[in-house]
Amino acid sequence: MSRLLQQIQFIKEIDKLKYIQRKTRLFNSDRHENDAEHSWHLAMMTLVLAEHSNVAIDVLKVLKMVLIHDIVEIDSGDIFIFDTSKNHENTQEELQAAKRIFGILPDELANELITLWIEFEKGATNEAKFAKAMDRFEPILQNISNNGGTWKEYKVSKEKVLEKTAPVAVGSKAIWEYSLHEIGGLFNKL
Amino acid sequence: MSRLLQQIQFIKEIDKLKYIQRKTRLFNSDRHENDAEHSWHLAMMTLVLAEHSNVAIDVLKVLKMVLIHDIVEIDSGDIFIFDTSKNHENTQEELQAAKRIFGILPDELANELITLWIEFEKGATNEAKFAKAMDRFEPILQNISNNGGTWKEYKVSKEKVLEKTAPVAVGSKAIWEYSLHEIGGLFNKL
Repeated sequence: MSRLLQQIQFIKEIDKLKYIQRKTRLFNSDRHENDAEHSWHLAMMTLVLAEHSNVAIDVLKVLKMVLIHDIVEIDSGDIFIFDTSKNHENTQEELQAAKRIFGILPDELANELITLWIEFEKGATNEAKFAKAMDRFEPILQNISNNGGTWKEYKVSKEKVLEKTAPVAVGSKAIWEYSLHEIGGLFNKL
Repeated sequence: MSRLLQQIQFIKEIDKLKYIQRKTRLFNSDRHENDAEHSWHLAMMTLVLAEHSNVAIDVLKVLKMVLIHDIVEIDSGDIFIFDTSKNHENTQEELQAAKRIFGILPDELANELITLWIEFEKGATNEAKFAKAMDRFEPILQNISNNGGTWKEYKVSKEKVLEKTAPVAVGSKAIWEYSLHEIGGLFNKL
């Protein structure tokens, strides 16, 4: 098959991301967010917040990461971060999903995106740290706008919230400082 | 207000893009697409199709363009490309929307995004041409997957479809060649 046909097949396949529903709801809303909307929002956050990264980052690389980071969920589904019954590590199932979905692309493009996805999952590089900070920061903003949102709905303690959102600090101390203040204020009201 | 607070206010405001419904429907589906999902999909298409651009392009710049290109519709709404009763030019209303929404950001960021949005609208630079090609190519794929989709629904002729999708050729001759073949095949069946 020509490269273009492989690329178009991939473009059609990832449309399914629009059906993967997250636990989190939109701002000031009851409506659940889907993974495609979430990925777009993280990309926009990256564009306007990159200056707050603790260290200099390659913005294009972070954008690629946040745009693709949830595509594996087309096969493996969204795992709620506070679901204690499920494994949140880079599971074998997710790796298989990455290989199947990105594998639709021509080899070197597939390898680039699989490698980038693994880098995001490991969270060790500066770009992965900032991408993960964005991924944790969006639901903080959403839950605060929804008077507790999923934290309240699933009776998550402030300590647990701070533990799960701590990756924000690894990407940006400034954004973490803001988050701490907002989370503190919210739990004082709940 | 601190820069970070302005940026966060902008991030909250653009959540509204998830409610702006397009005429086009998802692949093989009855479900309408919203502007946030559409913008994410164009960004992914840019990542995997950039090599087919007629000329070399700055991928980061195209990504920024497609991510922000519809944000003005939070204020002005989606205008269906085949709606002959409405003006599709860069209207005063859209410019006002760009100034209001991007204007929530710190000045130099606001100016960067307004300038980028105007560049996209004018469609004169290589990056704007490729971004517009992506914007026209996604509904071609969607309508073909939906056996004519909005073209059939609104009784749009093949000639009109080719006229409105011609910006694809300006961005990528290879993708246009594929599109011509697919559009031809579809109208032969209708």
